[in-house]
Order: sequence, then C-alpha cells, then structure tokens
Amino acid sequence: MLNVIGGSASTYLAYKISRVGQFPIIPIESKVFPDGERYVRVLGDVEGKRIALIQSMYRNPDSYLIEFIFISRTLKELGAKEVIGVIPYFPYARQDTRFNPGEAVSLDIVSRLIEESNVDKVITVDMHLHRYSSIKEVFRIPAENISAVDEIARYLANNYKLESPVIIGPDEESEQWAKRAASVLECDYDVLEKRRISAEEVEIVPRKVSVKGRDVVIVDDIISTGGTMAEAIKMLLKQGARRVIGACTHAILAGNALERIYRAGAHDVIATDTVPSPISVVSVAELLAKTLREHD
Amino acid sequence: MLNVIGGSASTYLAYKISRVGQFPIIPIESKVFPDGERYVRVLGDVEGKRIALIQSMYRNPDSYLIEFIFISRTLKELGAKEVIGVIPYFPYARQDTRFNPGEAVSLDIVSRLIEESNVDKVITVDMHLHRYSSIKEVFRIPAENISAVDEIARYLANNYKLESPVIIGPDEESEQWAKRAASVLECDYDVLEKRRISAEEVEIVPRKVSVKGRDVVIVDDIISTGGTMAEAIKMLLKQGARRVIGACTHAILAGNALERIYRAGAHDVIATDTVPSPISVVSVAELLAKTLREHD
Amino acid sequence: MLNVIGGSASTYLAYKISRVGQFPIIPIESKVFPDGERYVRVLGDVEGKRIALIQSMYRNPDSYLIEFIFISRTLKELGAKEVIGVIPYFPYARQDTRFNPGEAVSLDIVSRLIEESNVDKVITVDMHLHRYSSIKEVFRIPAENISAVDEIARYLANNYKLESPVIIGPDEESEQWAKRAASVLECDYDVLEKRRISAEEVEIVPRKVSVKGRDVVIVDDIISTGGTMAEAIKMLLKQGARRVIGACTHAILAGNALERIYRAGAHDVIATDTVPSPISVVSVAELLAKTLREHD
Amino acid sequence: MLNVIGGSASTYLAYKISRVGQFPIIPIESKVFPDGERYVRVLGDVEGKRIALIQSMYRNPDSYLIEFIFISRTLKELGAKEVIGVIPYFPYARQDTRFNPGEAVSLDIVSRLIEESNVDKVITVDMHLHRYSSIKEVFRIPAENISAVDEIARYLANNYKLESPVIIGPDEESEQWAKRAASVLECDYDVLEKRRISAEEVEIVPRKVSVKGRDVVIVDDIISTGGTMAEAIKMLLKQGARRVIGACTHAILAGNALERIYRAGAHDVIATDTVPSPISVVSVAELLAKTLREHD
Repeated sequence: MLNVIGGSASTYLAYKISRVGQFPIIPIESKVFPDGERYVRVLGDVEGKRIALIQSMYRNPDSYLIEFIFISRTLKELGAKEVIGVIPYFPYARQDTRFNPGEAVSLDIVSRLIEESNVDKVITVDMHLHRYSSIKEVFRIPAENISAVDEIARYLANNYKLESPVIIGPDEESEQWAKRAASVLECDYDVLEKRRISAEEVEIVPRKVSVKGRDVVIVDDIISTGGTMAEAIKMLLKQGARRVIGACTHAILAGNALERIYRAGAHDVIATDTVPSPISVVSVAELLAKTLREHD
Repeated sequence: MLNVIGGSASTYLAYKISRVGQFPIIPIESKVFPDGERYVRVLGDVEGKRIALIQSMYRNPDSYLIEFIFISRTLKELGAKEVIGVIPYFPYARQDTRFNPGEAVSLDIVSRLIEESNVDKVITVDMHLHRYSSIKEVFRIPAENISAVDEIARYLANNYKLESPVIIGPDEESEQWAKRAASVLECDYDVLEKRRISAEEVEIVPRKVSVKGRDVVIVDDIISTGGTMAEAIKMLLKQGARRVIGACTHAILAGNALERIYRAGAHDVIATDTVPSPISVVSVAELLAKTLREHD
Repeated sequence: MLNVIGGSASTYLAYKISRVGQFPIIPIESKVFPDGERYVRVLGDVEGKRIALIQSMYRNPDSYLIEFIFISRTLKELGAKEVIGVIPYFPYARQDTRFNPGEAVSLDIVSRLIEESNVDKVITVDMHLHRYSSIKEVFRIPAENISAVDEIARYLANNYKLESPVIIGPDEESEQWAKRAASVLECDYDVLEKRRISAEEVEIVPRKVSVKGRDVVIVDDIISTGGTMAEAIKMLLKQGARRVIGACTHAILAGNALERIYRAGAHDVIATDTVPSPISVVSVAELLAKTLREHD
Repeated sequence: MLNVIGGSASTYLAYKISRVGQFPIIPIESKVFPDGERYVRVLGDVEGKRIALIQSMYRNPDSYLIEFIFISRTLKELGAKEVIGVIPYFPYARQDTRFNPGEAVSLDIVSRLIEESNVDKVITVDMHLHRYSSIKEVFRIPAENISAVDEIARYLANNYKLESPVIIGPDEESEQWAKRAASVLECDYDVLEKRRISAEEVEIVPRKVSVKGRDVVIVDDIISTGGTMAEAIKMLLKQGARRVIGACTHAILAGNALERIYRAGAHDVIATDTVPSPISVVSVAELLAKTLREHD
C-alpha cells in the first residue's frame, strides 16, 4: 500500500491525491528559519513503507528541490522501502544540453541529484522534452511522464460551448498535445507555422486549417512569460477566430504573463493544478491517483 | 597553479582572493530566469586545471547550494582536475543530529550533496561544530575549517583604543574564540554562565573576571537573530562594563538583529566579509588566499 | 458606464469581473525592473471615465499598495472622472489602534494613503473590523464592506453532502459569519468558547450545540498562520464531529498553514479567490460585479 | 537638538550618523509578520523633538517607502516637532516624466507621498536628476541634494597609488561628478562620447584626453545592472588605460552586475554605504552628520 507525503510546494495536491486515491497521508512539518535554512520533519512511521513523495518544482525550484532531497533522503534513513518521486512540474527541462561551451546542463544535474537521493522511480506530468525522445532517457531509474491533456480537453468540453472548435498547437513540439486534445473533443487540430509574406513581413498561421468564425483552443505544455501564447492569440483573432482560449498544463505565469494574454484578446485561459495559480481550474489529482494505483 | 571561480554569493570575495593571492580568476555568467530557474556558464577553459570555487551559503542557502552544485559538477564535466569548495559560511550546521524522530539531519545531507558533486576538498571558515569535534568527521573528503578570529582581534586592536580590555564568549562553545582573540590582544578572557540568584531570578555573568570599568568585546562565531548578543550586551553593561563591542565571523543578521544589538547598548558591532553586511569590515580574503596557497 | 482595471495582484479577478459584469476592461502594463522599482502604464483612454480599480493586497501588501497608488493617482492625472478602489483583501486591519505607546496605527495610515490617492470610494470584502463597528468609520470617503459568506455557504451546499450540519465560528467576532452561513444552509450555528475544566486545563467547546456525529463547518474571515483553524478542528473532532470542513474568505496561508490544517484532521478547507491559493474555489467575481453594477 | 531614527533599510547608517554627529538615537522596533504586514513601533519619547529619519530606499523601494511613511506619520501623531527625511538613495528618479501616454510618473508620486506624510524637509545624496535641474523643483518642501563625490575622491587618493590619473564620466550627465572628483584629486577629467567610425561601427571614447598608460577612474552616480560601467571599462582598457577603477555613490548591483564589471577587466570597483553592498567602502555618515548639524 502506497502512502503519500506532500512537500510544501504541493501540500494541497498531496491531500487531494490522498483523498481521491484512498492513500494514507503521512504529514510533515516543514518551515524556513529566519536565517533562511529549511527544517523538515516526517511526522509518522515510514519503516518498511512505500511512499509517494509529491513535490512540484515551480517558481522557486531550487528551494523545492532541496526540500525534496531532504525528505527523500530522510525517508530512506528512516527505513522507507521505496520512494516514488512525483514531480508534477519538473524544472530545468529546457537546459537539456550544452548550447554554448561552459554551460551547466541543468536538466542532467537535477536528474542526477534526484536519483542520488534514494528515489526509486520518478513520475512527472507533461514534462517538456526537447532533445530527449522519452523521459526514460533522462533518468537512469524507472520514470514515467504522464499527460494531463485529456483532463484539459474534458474540462473544455464541459465548461465552454465551443462552436466549430479547432485545437491549435503554437509550434511543432506541441502538435502531440493538440492532436490528443482534438481526439477527446472530436474536432480538428493544427499547428502554427511562420510564413514569409514579403522581405520584411512574417505571418504566423495554421499550416492547413482556417480558423475563421471558429472557436480556437491553443494547447501548450507551459505558459511561462506568456509571450508565445499572447502572440498566437493576436494572430488567430486577426485571422478571424471567433473566440480564442488558451490552455496549458503548467501555469508558471512569470511577471505579467496573465495580463499579456488577456490583453492579447484571450476569451479565457486555463491550466491544471500542477502549478497553483488563479487559472489552475483543472485538477491532476485523479490522474496522479490513478497512475499511483498502477504502481501500488 | 590554482584558479579561482566565484559563485554569485561571493563574487566580490572571489575577486579579492584572486587579487591578493595572485590566482587567475575564471569568470562565470550566472543569472536567474523570470521562471525562477538559474542559468550558469563557465567563461574560460578549465581543462586540466585546479579550481577553488568560492561560494558562501548565507540567507538563501538552498539557492546558493544549487548554484555551487551546478558549477562544481560542470567543472568536472569540462575536465577540471580538482575542485576545492571554499564555503566561507557553511549553512545548516546546527541541524547536526536528529533531535526529534523524523527530522532531516540537514548538515549530513548537505555535506553528502557537496561530496557527491565532484568536490575534492572543502574549506570553511569558523564553521559551527557542536556534536562533531572536527570538520574531518563531517566530511568523507579532505576538509579544513579555518578561523578568522585572529583577523578580528587584529582589527579590534587597530581600530579601537580598548581600555583594560576583556574578551567574553557568550557560552562555553565560544570559549575557543575568546581565548584565541585574547591571546592576540594580550588580555583576559572569560565566558558567560547562568547563575541562579533566587528561585525566580537568573543572572548571566562571566565565570571569573569582573567587567567593571573595562572595555568588553563579545566574540562569537555567528550573529543570527541577534538575541544572544543583545542579551549579553545588556547584562555586561549592567555589570559596569565601560563599552561593549560585539564581534563575530558571520553576520547573518536575520530580521531586525542589528537594531536589537544597538538598542541593547552596543558601542559597535563588527564582522568579517564571509557574509556581506553593513558591519562586515574585516576581510577574510588574505586568510583564504594564504590557505589556498598552502593547497597550491 | 464603469470600466475595470486590474492591478497585478488581481489580474485574473479583474478580467473575470469584467466578463461576468459586462464592464469594459482597460489593460495596463505593470512590471518590476531589476533594481526593484515598479513601472506602471495605463493602456487605454480613461478621460472622463469612471473606473473600478481592482487590487487585493495580500502577502506583499506594501508592493501592491504602492502599485495601487501609482495607478489611482495616474488615472486622475489622465482625466478619469471617478476611481472606485476595489480592495477584496484589505491589509493591516488588525493594527487598528495603538496597543502599545509608539506603535504605528497601520490601518489608519493605509486608509489615509488610499483616500489621498484620489480614490472616490472603497469596496472591500469581509474586511476584518475589530474596534470599528463599520467600514464607514475607517474611511472619510464612501466605503462599503461586502460579505462573501453567502457564496461560501452556497458552495458548501452544492459540493458536500453535509449530514446534520452545524456552522461554527471560532470566536465571538466570527458569530456574524456563522449565523449568515447557517441561514443559507438552513442549519444550526454556534461559536467556540474557552471553558476552564480544572486549574490547569482549558477546553474549547461550542457554547450550546453538540457536534457529536455531525458535519461541522468552521467559518472565519481569514486563515493566516492556520493556528486558530487547526486548533478548532482538533477540538471538534475530539468532541465527536463526523467531518470538519474549514471555510474562510481570505486564504493568506502564511508558512505551513495548509499543512497544519490538514494535519489537524480537516476533511477539507475552502476559501474565495480574493486571495489566490490552491483552496480558492469560490469566486467573488459575481458578487463584486453585482456590487459594482449598483454603483454604475 | 536633532534626534536620529533609522528605518530598517539604514539601521547601521543611522547608528553611525548618531555616533559621529553626537545626535541621540531613538530606537525603533520594526518587523514583518508572516502574512507580509510590517509592524513599526517608536521606542522613545519624541514629543516636541526634531527628528532626522534615515531611510535609504534601495532594492525593495516600496517596502522601505511604506515603512518610512509609517514612521514619519506616527512621529507627528506622537507630537514630534519636525521630521527631516534623510533618504540617501532616493528611488524612482528615472521616471521623472511621462515618456509614453498613460505612464505613472513615479518620481512625482513618490515625492508627493513623502510630502504628505508630514515630512518637513528632505535630504538626499547624489539623487539622479534628469529633467529637473534642482531637487528644489522636485519637492514642494525644503529639499537638499548633497554629493558624496568628495568622499569618494578622497578614498581613491588614500587607497590607490594612482599613476597619471584621469577621471572619466561615462556620459554627459556625469560630467559634474567627474569634474568635482578631478578637482579633489588634482587631475584631468573628461566624459565619454560615441563616435561613428564607419557605417557599422561606433566607438566610445573620451572627448579630449588620451587614457593611454594612465590610471582611469570612472565616476558615476549609480551602478544598477552594471552595463554602462562594464562597457566603459572594456573600451578604456582597449584604448590603452593602465588600470580602470569604477566608482559610484549608489551600489544597487542588480543581478550579476558585479561579475559583469570585474569580467570587463575592472581593477577594482567602489561605492558609498548609501546602499549596503560588498563594495560599499566609503561612508557617507560624516557627510550626513555634517549636513544635519547645519540643520540643527
């Protein structure tokens, strides 16, 4: 039987997973002293137990990573049999190679730190993979990257009366999510591409479909500064879209991202609760509970 | 020949050590993206080189620790021959055991993280050792804990006309620093102890010496919230001390520590530059340069 | 016709109010420079217009207050006819008098700063009033304090199958909210009181009702450190409550508040979106839109 | 007789001014609660007294501004006769006009907030004035802007064996400081200008002097991101300067400013203690004490 522990980045999500999945939760005490040092204490017996340690690593990734390491190493010292690291938002995924000489390959280093901290298995949600074709290449321990796009698509189906909908991925990498969302919503999908229309001008348009008069949903894995999403929304509205809704798994929303997206003309914008935010209306708790049950 | 690299917590100190010690410096680029992720790049050839990586870990220890790990692991990937981790302020030293069941033993975990990050040797300054009698027990790699108390004592001798001075350690653990400072200043020293004067009242007084009419210097390794220092100052002034000066190696100064100490009646308060602060008037650059030369 | 502007603390809420209330929104650009200074620009014509400026002031109240002041003063310089300050979470309400000589009466100072910044009217949600009997005494300009307790009660009715429910206020001041929630849910209510049971022991119990075997909802205006809520939950479970749900308007959730509440045994805990948080499931957008329509 | 109070941004500077100027200090208690709200208490009798309130407003200007306002308004409520606002680093000076429609003119708003908070007079150090020719135009109350450039120049004279020195201002606005420093050091000065050397290339060179083989000191009011300073250092070294030292009044040092400057080849870089930093080696305490004595 799996037990659940939530790091301080994912207290709420851990309790939700515990409830919907009927996993016992083991509480922790976690605080930061005035001098900036974190204190962590596991408040329950973990000896011989299998533990799912839930910790999303958004906005303050270094602090949440260290807390994760403190907990996972302590669990094994206390006799836990297995630690499954559930990291709904996995940070540093962009820096997956040395783009310039001398750069730290942060993704590799963070993955090693997690493996070396007695974690037996890693579960992530819509981790952004560029140069790796699978999460199994990122980690040397068993690892699984699940997608929340079905949950997002179902939320869209239930909460918006979409008219003649089309799902758009803002770039080629997001085609996978657009395709999958479209299959749930039983509608078209496409991705945007840059098209040169003159020496000076570039147009960003869907490869094949027309958005004229249709409800468009832009689906991406992450909204960070909001630049990509805002640009796509403006373009699609200019091309005659009826309404444009932005949807993503991870609402990092750095700086004034949300304002930029609304200002661009978004009808609405939604995300999951892998990263807490005002737009995190779709929960991944059921999805993660189901995944954990498969590992139970 | 040693080369010096400074993490972003110790940029200034690294350049100072490089200058006074005539060690070539290798610059880095280090920044935090709007989404909170750190980017690190080493801007020079390190292949086959021996590197002293300077990074104090104060106030934001988790962020500085991760940056240190990013740099040290990258140095070895880039072919560096040896990495000496110079950590002037070493964090998490208080949590050196499991005081209560379930607690993370942070000091051990942080030490392991550093060892596992390809560091060959560690140098710290006045690391606070409680249950360990030597830094050699903390680390499984060569490690050295040097003291800045001579530098502090010389600064006191040069900058204050101390009258009939006496050095006071606020508790037994600080006797070592009091004694050493007293030998530089060629004066008395003592430590404070609690003495019960009635069922309700406790007095905090020096064990043996009288401070009446004398200039007192309280010497400690660290000022964190300032509580210990402020209390000692009040007591010693009440017992007739002429002036009380606070001195420490690490000026963490959490919250309103400085205000508390001055309000208690401190004539002045000084510290070294292991932790940058307005009172960090004594530099450890010469001391660290000298220590590094011995490892050269 | 009212126009809506959202400060960066309430971007999402402002767009939601604009949508449900059919108020045109005027976008802004707001960012913080690397040196820590904020930049604000109103991106639309406001001359002669009436503006509802939405800015909740949670967690970083000083930064959000300054941004509010920058915007409201600029609006009047740009010719706006009226500025209604909508401050869903109003900070500094506790410090409403000089408890000790020399203290700043923060509530008064913040209220004056808002009045002096060309605000014509203030609307708050469940502002915590202790020594003032009405918000009209706090401000010298028209002011209205609306309550979200009906919205919270309706959410509870729709989302939990409450068995033999009773609403509990954790102290006398919260009786007003408990009473009102109970009238929506058509059930009992009570408040907790301290009862001395021996020289050493104090019991915290409802004044009149028994919670044995019943679903209990604790209703308060704010959850800050979570101490009051956690204590009440433990007590009520000990007294035989079937399930205890915490509910509040403002989810400040400082430090590990959420963990404390769940660890105390909460079945669930909910709040409104005056303060964004993972538990902010009840929206005040409709309520605020309705209130603004009355001022239209 | 003036009394001194230090806000939490300038605790150390206030005590130093109090000591060198023989002004009595009135302590305060200032802290931030876990919910982010600041608490301020003046710990001494101020009735009928004249108070110099020292608060520099760097890096977290909004938080320090609110604290300043809390204290200054409280002082008058408590019966203080006069409040002199000593703001060594005055923030928001760049935004002194509406560069684009809709922008907040932050400098004006912040100045008004200070005037309206019962401040009788303002003293700043090397406030950056662009469009205003004098601080007297910025404020409607008496105001004085003093310069620390003499202190900086004297420090340079005493601590570096400058060979054939020349003082350089990085742009026209900084000519005033270059000139004044040169007169203390009895040497040449000049400012940099951009010179087009071909259709594509621009050169940045001193207007008249040659720096070849000479020690150059670049003098500016502020180092923020370090870009201007780093660029100037690189250019001057390329033009044959022997050593280049950077000097400024305010060491804001945002992000990796210090690293950029050293990496550009700076021999050293120094600043005053209006803003605490590792390079703040020149104190303005004497200068401010002298200025306050003139107002005594």
